[in-house]
Amino acid sequence: MSVFSYLKRRARPAPGQVAFVGAGPGDAELLTLKAFRALEAAEVVIHDRLVSSDVLELAGPRARLIEAGKKGFGPSTRQTDINALIVKHALSGARVVRLKGGDPTVFGRLDEEIDALTEAGIGWHIVPGITAASASVAAIGQSLTKRGRNTSVRILTGHDMKGFADHDWHALARSGEVAAIYMGKSASRFIQGRLLMHGADPATPITLVENASGPDQRIIATTLVQLSSDLTDAAVDGPALTLFGLAPRTAQSALPRIPAQELA
Amino acid sequence: MSVFSYLKRRARPAPGQVAFVGAGPGDAELLTLKAFRALEAAEVVIHDRLVSSDVLELAGPRARLIEAGKKGFGPSTRQTDINALIVKHALSGARVVRLKGGDPTVFGRLDEEIDALTEAGIGWHIVPGITAASASVAAIGQSLTKRGRNTSVRILTGHDMKGFADHDWHALARSGEVAAIYMGKSASRFIQGRLLMHGADPATPITLVENASGPDQRIIATTLVQLSSDLTDAAVDGPALTLFGLAPRTAQSALPRIPAQELA
Repeated sequence: MSVFSYLKRRARPAPGQVAFVGAGPGDAELLTLKAFRALEAAEVVIHDRLVSSDVLELAGPRARLIEAGKKGFGPSTRQTDINALIVKHALSGARVVRLKGGDPTVFGRLDEEIDALTEAGIGWHIVPGITAASASVAAIGQSLTKRGRNTSVRILTGHDMKGFADHDWHALARSGEVAAIYMGKSASRFIQGRLLMHGADPATPITLVENASGPDQRIIATTLVQLSSDLTDAAVDGPALTLFGLAPRTAQSALPRIPAQELA
Repeated sequence: MSVFSYLKRRARPAPGQVAFVGAGPGDAELLTLKAFRALEAAEVVIHDRLVSSDVLELAGPRARLIEAGKKGFGPSTRQTDINALIVKHALSGARVVRLKGGDPTVFGRLDEEIDALTEAGIGWHIVPGITAASASVAAIGQSLTKRGRNTSVRILTGHDMKGFADHDWHALARSGEVAAIYMGKSASRFIQGRLLMHGADPATPITLVENASGPDQRIIATTLVQLSSDLTDAAVDGPALTLFGLAPRTAQSALPRIPAQELA
């Protein structure tokens, strides 16, 4: 079945409603078909600054693109402005897509925007997206969970409303634990210190994936004890996901070389 | 830009290699564009039993579909057979898609299959998918993380190689914790007991999402103390994701009714 006939079988998003759509980690091909369809049908697309231009290109030719100007966990002063913007366009009767990097339900400030819509009596739904943890672990050829190693994985943030976020470091310090740390780059020295203090093995593998799935993706493999110095040396600029407890699968590099694009 | 021109800009999967592709939670529209393209180009598709027929329909007309016969966390006797099957088809020079429900990196037995390919010198890559946790939380209009409530979320399994999986129940029992529990249905009485024993609030909200994103999706909202009796009453048949610490967003039901399809 062709993409077109498949997509056209289903209804389009309704006017005056808001679709919270996951833009995925960067590569436009990691959008879902549902997200693609929502973008194509959108009249207004209100997007985070981090959403890639490749993804924005997929919006319909008549769609109005509005950058909401929020970047990850920066100062939140403008969240109320973003809420008001979404409400305004939905009340005008437009088909609104609120496009968020990754998955809207993971560190996406989704609840605040939904509350604003609810207060204004505006309908909404959520289209999930590929979160950075999935794309990053796929890029290094590993699993987030593995039989005999870990039966749970934590998704956590390096920052919260008060600064560096506190977590159950003692539990994470145990052997075999795996965590995907969002916004962990600037908190890396803090995280390193806490984990070592709680007895984590200094040789625990840690992998940073910068710009996961994008053309400028970069993989930095290090260990807990080397984390902050290696990060400083690597001069990581872009958004990065920290995979605690995972090293890139070495066997991958022993295989016949495949162009990076095909691996992505 | 149309889907077709967009998809055709990129190379197709190579012959004699294996793409581990996430089939998403059920709704074929929750496939990524990359997964869609891989399925279209596949000559052999080796799929889990749980992958929906809507998704399988997207394979190219000449693709050979092979059910690998594994269902979630059932007996693993046939994993070595599955490994051998993938290797055999790749060595024959076919473009092979190994299609796994949800995201291949989350409780997907991915490592065992990669090891078999590595041993046989076969190239592979991973195409991430929407995992059940994302689709389920989207279905109930909630976030996995929320400022002021939880800065981390756990993804865990109710079962491991030894039976019911043990976890850090004490940490999970704290107020405000959120977890997405895979294969938690039959372990629900065990999980309930452990959490209550460790002091979790009996009124902690728990939501089960059965057949997330599918046409037969069902949402069962309960609390920790009611969990096992409510599950028995609901006679949950299909695969279900247990969201610990989350109730469906009640405001949603107060909004003008939207057909279930549009909410999915």
